[in-house]
Amino acid sequence: MSGPATKKQRTQPTYELIYWGGIPGRGEYIRLPLEASGAAYSDPGNEKNNGNKDVLSLIDQKSLGDDDGNPPVFAPPALRIPGAGKDGKSLLIHQTPTILQYLGPKIGMVPEDDAGQMHVEQMTQTALDLSNEAHDVHHPVAVGLYYEDQKDEALRRSKDFRDNRIPKFFNYFERILKSNEDVGKGQYLVGGKLTYADTTLWQVVDG
Amino acid sequence: MSGPATKKQRTQPTYELIYWGGIPGRGEYIRLPLEASGAAYSDPGNEKNNGNKDVLSLIDQKSLGDDDGNPPVFAPPALRIPGAGKDGKSLLIHQTPTILQYLGPKIGMVPEDDAGQMHVEQMTQTALDLSNEAHDVHHPVAVGLYYEDQKDEALRRSKDFRDNRIPKFFNYFERILKSNEDVGKGQYLVGGKLTYADTTLWQVVDG
Repeated sequence: MSGPATKKQRTQPTYELIYWGGIPGRGEYIRLPLEASGAAYSDPGNEKNNGNKDVLSLIDQKSLGDDDGNPPVFAPPALRIPGAGKDGKSLLIHQTPTILQYLGPKIGMVPEDDAGQMHVEQMTQTALDLSNEAHDVHHPVAVGLYYEDQKDEALRRSKDFRDNRIPKFFNYFERILKSNEDVGKGQYLVGGKLTYADTTLWQVVDG
Repeated sequence: MSGPATKKQRTQPTYELIYWGGIPGRGEYIRLPLEASGAAYSDPGNEKNNGNKDVLSLIDQKSLGDDDGNPPVFAPPALRIPGAGKDGKSLLIHQTPTILQYLGPKIGMVPEDDAGQMHVEQMTQTALDLSNEAHDVHHPVAVGLYYEDQKDEALRRSKDFRDNRIPKFFNYFERILKSNEDVGKGQYLVGGKLTYADTTLWQVVDG
């Protein structure tokens, strides 16, 4: 989004989500809470037609960080927050759970108490672990190889994933919903309203 | 440790680290910053001779959480903090990066500025990703199967890990140290003193 349009957007920073264009990927875990809260953000990978120049420059393996003093980034997604870094410069962070933890309180996607915020973060990390394991099922030998080159291994691994891992994760999240039935009405993982743990789990299961 | 012994211990909560006894494992990522900061903590898995009863009860797949209103735990390590939960009850959290994020500011193992704290957390998560990938090298088909039953796959995967993944991670951390040369003297990842990003990376590489 270029230029603020509403009062809310004018009084909050416009977050910049840096991720590959054209795929939801891990960027979607950041987009969902931003959208759910109505926060202003830009998504250059999908807005600029420049061949993912922003991402590629971010993960350049010679980079010693950006001009605002932020350290190098390992992999996208990353989030840039104008004015939130040292001396009023921008803050640049990466790692999906770190970005969500940063955004949560600022866009109202966590409970107000510290305990609730920690619980949202630990459930989010567990949901992302499930997502990682699901991804690994198709690349058990190497993420850099095609599925075709590791199909036999993937079939063996997928059996274990279906028989053992998915039930264990689902059992955990079902027990959380049940333990939060009174306050969360069986709909929310923590407290009585939507948090980024909910949007993350939803995306892992549905995405 | 039973009973406070020093002034520092009397004025801080005694953290309870719940993890399997007899192995460093992921519990070590929590122990290192606790030890480095001199914080008081108990480690029942290694202190009690009760067959890991504390861990087993924690991850009981029928548990709907503890008596203090904390939600279920997926896997150890977990940390219990007396008095930090709702209504003065205990707070129970799990997931290594969540525990570290909670402890960091309380035991002085992060910089004081928000930006530095986010950078510590993102680097820690990346170091733990490396640790996960290293573990997966030996269990490419299923974490529940023995190495012997997936040795061929492990050999293929280890080649990819050595040739592609380790260099990528090391390159990232080397660039961070280089970009922090002035303040961190090439010794610390973030700022001018030891943080839990340093202890985590050290344990991943050395452990």
